[in-house]
Amino acid sequence: MKKLSKVLAVEKLPAVSEFSQDHLLIYDLYLEQIPHVKKWIRSFPFSYGVAAGEGLKDLFQFPQHLQKILQMTKSMNSRNLEIIALGGGSVGDFTGFVASIYKRGVRLVQIPSTWLSAIDSAHGGKTALNVADAKNQIGTFYSAERVYLCHELLMGQPLARRQEAFGELFKIALLDSVSWQKDFQKYKDLDTLLWKTLKKAVQAKYKVVKKDPFEISGHRQILNLGHTFGHVLELSQGYPHGYAVTQGLRFALEWSFHRKMLPAKTYEKILQIFEDFGMEDARITHAKEIQKLKTQQVKDLLLKDKKRQDNASVTFIFIKNWGKPVRQSVSVDEMIQEIQRQSWMGKK
Amino acid sequence: MKKLSKVLAVEKLPAVSEFSQDHLLIYDLYLEQIPHVKKWIRSFPFSYGVAAGEGLKDLFQFPQHLQKILQMTKSMNSRNLEIIALGGGSVGDFTGFVASIYKRGVRLVQIPSTWLSAIDSAHGGKTALNVADAKNQIGTFYSAERVYLCHELLMGQPLARRQEAFGELFKIALLDSVSWQKDFQKYKDLDTLLWKTLKKAVQAKYKVVKKDPFEISGHRQILNLGHTFGHVLELSQGYPHGYAVTQGLRFALEWSFHRKMLPAKTYEKILQIFEDFGMEDARITHAKEIQKLKTQQVKDLLLKDKKRQDNASVTFIFIKNWGKPVRQSVSVDEMIQEIQRQSWMGKK
Repeated sequence: MKKLSKVLAVEKLPAVSEFSQDHLLIYDLYLEQIPHVKKWIRSFPFSYGVAAGEGLKDLFQFPQHLQKILQMTKSMNSRNLEIIALGGGSVGDFTGFVASIYKRGVRLVQIPSTWLSAIDSAHGGKTALNVADAKNQIGTFYSAERVYLCHELLMGQPLARRQEAFGELFKIALLDSVSWQKDFQKYKDLDTLLWKTLKKAVQAKYKVVKKDPFEISGHRQILNLGHTFGHVLELSQGYPHGYAVTQGLRFALEWSFHRKMLPAKTYEKILQIFEDFGMEDARITHAKEIQKLKTQQVKDLLLKDKKRQDNASVTFIFIKNWGKPVRQSVSVDEMIQEIQRQSWMGKK
Repeated sequence: MKKLSKVLAVEKLPAVSEFSQDHLLIYDLYLEQIPHVKKWIRSFPFSYGVAAGEGLKDLFQFPQHLQKILQMTKSMNSRNLEIIALGGGSVGDFTGFVASIYKRGVRLVQIPSTWLSAIDSAHGGKTALNVADAKNQIGTFYSAERVYLCHELLMGQPLARRQEAFGELFKIALLDSVSWQKDFQKYKDLDTLLWKTLKKAVQAKYKVVKKDPFEISGHRQILNLGHTFGHVLELSQGYPHGYAVTQGLRFALEWSFHRKMLPAKTYEKILQIFEDFGMEDARITHAKEIQKLKTQQVKDLLLKDKKRQDNASVTFIFIKNWGKPVRQSVSVDEMIQEIQRQSWMGKK
């Protein structure tokens, strides 16, 4: 990763003339269903449509993709070649990985089409593929030169997707600073909030990434806030990622409060924000399914890809206040106890 | 690429205890035929034998390899994991690529088993795979933390391989400085020359790499000295790489002299060194086959992976003196003329 990306907030998709003379667009085929996006895609002389999703990130499919991409670009000068990703997380992960290894690295531009990727995955230079069932086992650190945040594109997303975006936005806000409290009061509806604070959220993420670009010091682990338990819910309940993260944040906040790390007043204000933006508590709306969660299943999900051992522990991100995350190692048993205490699972 | 590698010249293969607690050895299966190397390989709790050669670098075989490697290492802590490459160029390229993308990069150690890799490919952080017939189309810049130059291992190579090593050694010497002239006088036999100057050759290569680690400025292109025409011979005549490079150096030196860039005296002294170390002139020893080379074939080989165009040109490395390479763009037609003038091909 040479340096951080340049982030550009724009109303409409950028004209082809904004890109290097030699370029290839890799895009989510689903986006052809949106007429103005389809027209824009067709304006590219070279484009490669892919089916988004975890299948796209399968290493076993990768050679075929790469061979086709090489075929399309063989007449281009790889020194100037720019590869552009248009899509959500999987398209960004896949395209970023391609750009990072194609002739040992060519220029990369990200145009995230989903709120989750616009807030989170398009930034920070992490690319990834899966090896069979094992997610994100291979990848590179490789930042995009530019990331376009496109209003027209993002606003075209269904309401459910915008609601999911709240989780990642709130996470980065919590990690960043108390100044966000005002933003959550000022912008009353979700769409305005998301667009108006998007660039601020991205800058906040870059602040974290800059301190630990290659995940060496461990500082970057704070970005896992809400994700440790969020992933358990995502995998066990099939919740969409953003929704699961919002629930994971709820869990982390409640645990932080219970441990007397997070003051009651701050905690209450935060819960009020959740309410203001209509963020539900899955323990209420999905009470029945939640009660079916079993200890062994939660343990397995927490320890995924880790050495199975009796004294197994995970790094959990607590929060003392806005902008004050705390990394702590907790045993899986402690975590299970807390999940039970908070009624996030059955009593055995 | 974080930084340059630490280079260690050692008599014997390093003990397993010199590596990180979590490690995986990836090695050339051929080396099991050497009893003391086989014993050393067996001392590793985790090792993965591969068949060296271009097939190992085939992207289409890569997913299977990676899945097995992941399986073997799944109980290890990837933060400390060290992947060790024992083998020649293809094993180093493959293993380097694996280490660079495994969980976005783990520690890498290179133990080159061939002279060519000990002098050249194990250093400088270039990893590569092939996509079908297209060589080195994907890869990363990823330096080994340590490179072990092992006397016992390298001296076990057949004489022909040691003779091939001369080409790469002489190339880096020419690029480096006139101080090498003394080395070529001082060490009378090839084995002594190779071992005594190996570390100096590696340091000389690092001097070049350091000025252009990601191949951006173009400075690193000087490492192609002797390779432009060398590759043509390698591919058309089936010469081993090192042998082809020695011939390619001969071609570059003669052209530099003919262009009055290289003084006659220096040129003569260099030809004397070639003679002293028994480096033959393929135009004499392989006269018949050389005469069969055709213009179109040479053109195609020179323009491989390039835009086919009438005014096509290649960057050629000339030499004005020891330590004074000159990068110049030459048209393919000029180059063909010179190849004919030097009697390296038939007259049509």
